[in-house]
Amino acid sequence: MTLIIAWDRPGDAKAVEQACRAAVAVKLGLPLVIQTRGRAVYDARRMCDGMVIADLKLADIGATMKSIVDSIPGVDGVIAHAFVGVEGALDELKEHLDSKGVGLYLLVSMSHPGSRDVIDQAIDRLFDVAEKVDPLGLVAPATRPGIVRMARDRFPDKVIISPGVGAQGARPGDALCAGANYEIVGRAITRSGNPLERALEIRRMQEVALRYCR
Amino acid sequence: MTLIIAWDRPGDAKAVEQACRAAVAVKLGLPLVIQTRGRAVYDARRMCDGMVIADLKLADIGATMKSIVDSIPGVDGVIAHAFVGVEGALDELKEHLDSKGVGLYLLVSMSHPGSRDVIDQAIDRLFDVAEKVDPLGLVAPATRPGIVRMARDRFPDKVIISPGVGAQGARPGDALCAGANYEIVGRAITRSGNPLERALEIRRMQEVALRYCR
Repeated sequence: MTLIIAWDRPGDAKAVEQACRAAVAVKLGLPLVIQTRGRAVYDARRMCDGMVIADLKLADIGATMKSIVDSIPGVDGVIAHAFVGVEGALDELKEHLDSKGVGLYLLVSMSHPGSRDVIDQAIDRLFDVAEKVDPLGLVAPATRPGIVRMARDRFPDKVIISPGVGAQGARPGDALCAGANYEIVGRAITRSGNPLERALEIRRMQEVALRYCR
Repeated sequence: MTLIIAWDRPGDAKAVEQACRAAVAVKLGLPLVIQTRGRAVYDARRMCDGMVIADLKLADIGATMKSIVDSIPGVDGVIAHAFVGVEGALDELKEHLDSKGVGLYLLVSMSHPGSRDVIDQAIDRLFDVAEKVDPLGLVAPATRPGIVRMARDRFPDKVIISPGVGAQGARPGDALCAGANYEIVGRAITRSGNPLERALEIRRMQEVALRYCR
C-alpha cells in the first residue's frame, strides 16, 4: 500500500474511517489534535488499523518538543522541522521518541511559494541535519518531485512520505515516481462522496503511474 | 514595565497569578495549551491584567496556521517562525491575525546550539521575511545579544521580546541593553519561593543594568 490519509477536520471522521481501510496510515493535523483535545488520536486508532502520524510540525528546543509529544499520547509517528537543527533540539527529540517507540519524520521541504524565501535556499543544510539525526523518515512535497528525487538520492534507505497530492495539485504517482514510499491524500478523498472507493481509485492511479514512470 | 512571564507547566498557575502583577504580559507555551486543552489561555486572562501571548512556534502553510490560531481563542498575540516564508504562509497568517486584532511576533533566532545548523546561516533572509510580513514584533533570544542588536538596528520601530533570561543563562537586562523591549522570564520566577517578590527583584535588576549598558 502506498497511500496515507490526511485527516484535518473533525467533521471528516466518518470519511476517514471508511478511507483508512485502503491506507497504510492516517496523518492527523495539529489543528485537529487541538480542536478535538487529543481525542482524534484515539479515534484514529480505533477506526483504522494502520499507523497514526501526528503532523505537529515541531519546531522548538528539545525540552519543549518532548513536552508536546508527551501531551499527545498514542501516536506511532510525529513530524518535526529539520530546520531547528541538531544539538539541543532534534537530538533530544530523537532520543526521546526512540525511548517511546515513536517514529520521527523530518520535514525538509514545503510546497507553498514562500518556501523559496528561506527553506529552499537551505536544502543542503536541511539534508545534513537529517543525516545527523537519522530519523525514520523524511517529508517532502509531491508538488516538487525534484526535491523528492534529491531526498531519495541522498537517503536511499529512508521512508519518504509526500503530501500535496490532490487538492494541492500533484497527481497520484508523481511523488512515488520521484522516489517517495507513500503519498498523503486528504481532501480529495475525505470530501468525496465515497471515500473508500475514491481511495481505492487513487491507489489504482498510483499503480498505473508507477508502471509508466519516466 | 519590561518583563513578560513565561508560563510553561499547569502546576505553575499560582506562581504566574502572583508574578504577573509585575509583568506586562504572560507567554504561554504550546505544551501548556495542549495539556490544559486551551484552558490556560482563559486562566491567564482571568488571573492577569496584561496581554496573553501564545508561543505556538507556528511553522506551516497559511491555511493550517490560521486553523491552529482559530483553535486557541482569547489570545492577544501569537509567535510564528519567520523561517516558513511569506507567500502562502506568513502573508495569510498576518492578514488573518490583523482581522482578529491579534498581534504577530516573528521568531528570527533561537538559543540552542543546533540553531547554528540552519537558522543562524539564514539570519539575513529571516530578517527579509520579517520586513515583508511587517509583524507587530520579533522574538530573539537574550542569550544572544548580538542578534538582538542586529534585529534592533534593522527594525528600529518593532517590538522585540527576548526569552532566555534566568534558567537559560542570560542576566536580567542583557537583552534590554541590546535593544529588546521586553525580557521573558519563566522558571527563575515561577519556581522561586515568592514569585511576585522575585519578579519585582528582576525588574530592579533590569533597571540597574539599563543604567550601566555599554
